[in-house]
Amino acid sequence: MEIKPRYFLQLAYDGTPYRGWQRQPEAPSVQEEVEHALRTILHLPELFVVGCGRTDTGVHATDYYLHFDAPSDHPVDERLVYSLNSMLPDSIAVKRVIPVADDAHARFSATERGYVYLILRKKDAFMADRAHVLHPALDVGAMNEACKHLIGKQDFTSFCKAGSDAKTMICDVRMAEWEVVPNGYRFRIRADRFLRNMVRAIVGTCIRIGKGQAPPESMAEVIAAKDRSMAGKSASARGLYLEHVVYPFIPTNIVA
Amino acid sequence: MEIKPRYFLQLAYDGTPYRGWQRQPEAPSVQEEVEHALRTILHLPELFVVGCGRTDTGVHATDYYLHFDAPSDHPVDERLVYSLNSMLPDSIAVKRVIPVADDAHARFSATERGYVYLILRKKDAFMADRAHVLHPALDVGAMNEACKHLIGKQDFTSFCKAGSDAKTMICDVRMAEWEVVPNGYRFRIRADRFLRNMVRAIVGTCIRIGKGQAPPESMAEVIAAKDRSMAGKSASARGLYLEHVVYPFIPTNIVA
Repeated sequence: MEIKPRYFLQLAYDGTPYRGWQRQPEAPSVQEEVEHALRTILHLPELFVVGCGRTDTGVHATDYYLHFDAPSDHPVDERLVYSLNSMLPDSIAVKRVIPVADDAHARFSATERGYVYLILRKKDAFMADRAHVLHPALDVGAMNEACKHLIGKQDFTSFCKAGSDAKTMICDVRMAEWEVVPNGYRFRIRADRFLRNMVRAIVGTCIRIGKGQAPPESMAEVIAAKDRSMAGKSASARGLYLEHVVYPFIPTNIVA
Repeated sequence: MEIKPRYFLQLAYDGTPYRGWQRQPEAPSVQEEVEHALRTILHLPELFVVGCGRTDTGVHATDYYLHFDAPSDHPVDERLVYSLNSMLPDSIAVKRVIPVADDAHARFSATERGYVYLILRKKDAFMADRAHVLHPALDVGAMNEACKHLIGKQDFTSFCKAGSDAKTMICDVRMAEWEVVPNGYRFRIRADRFLRNMVRAIVGTCIRIGKGQAPPESMAEVIAAKDRSMAGKSASARGLYLEHVVYPFIPTNIVA
């Protein structure tokens, strides 16, 4: 069988209109939109794409990668970016197409992923589906104190939604940090991998601490409990953005 | 007749879902939403508001003022901001309520207005209805050279949409400037008043010059012609934001 050349697509999407990344019957998904556009433009009715991860309903991505294969007689180049952007809905923008090795895999080759979570303290007419609105002030010092407990290779069962099919709950969290931004707070977290609903459960737990409803040290207890009911309530999807995916073969310093 | 206390509301709105600011039968408008919310919250079925100006379908406002009157037995305070924000759609956010003198008028008391026009060179999944996408590079130097001709008290008939009921076409333009921003260009224009469609026609004329299709000096000829057909094509509404309204009695250095 012919080995077809493989390509990565780098894209961004506003998750508001979608029931998440993953294709599913009877619900709009980013994957379905991208596959449909690629099939039409490349005249390849059997084309499928593999994404770097699943994002839930309403979750956004400012940086997302997928891979697909196309026969060598179907030239894939920068013009594909223009064609895709013309055909795809306004909420999905393609940044780059990158030729990769045949064994490069959008999901399994990624060595690090990163999310941003945005909280605004006031209603913002332009950020309705793009931030979580929370009026009270949060104690960023206490939240960052709590976040120190997240760092390292640990079992994150307490932050994983029930029904996950993950084989292991061990994640290597490399960064977890809150900062004050105009009108609100921004959380950045990076790890080798994330469990289902993990970032939103961590954010909910941080909010509880930021409001003074639990001490920073409670984060260590929540982790140790390996029990989802110990963590805070899951923060809303609208504030969550996948913003960072690292591959050994793609320079991360390229600003798209 | 009792003189009712007057209030200004400062708000922001994403114009995408509206057929402009102004109330009209059978089409959604920002005015109608705000009036409906105020009437419900204040229990004043006869309440009407007066806005600082009309914005067209799809035009946004990061800063907008309106006035309304409420009987003195209807206390109006900061709690109204919270109630309005809860009741209004996501696309309209109220920033402040400001008690003003009885003769303060949202439209006639404004001494200066300012708009921003945003052009992006690449499709942006998060800015679909909020910027005009234009791939080619523009010559900002040439556009700013052209903009010098706009400054001052002049007849702007060439940039006014036919059918305007304005009594005079004289506007005093005080600032008109393009700058390079990440991924695109931003235009700022300020004047005592604007004619219908004026900013979008000026932007279209600037784009023609920025693309090298006309020299900077052509701006002076377009103004002198007093003929709309001489100006460039109207740029799309989605890139336009009302961002600045000045009243002698409201400090402009307050950041809301």
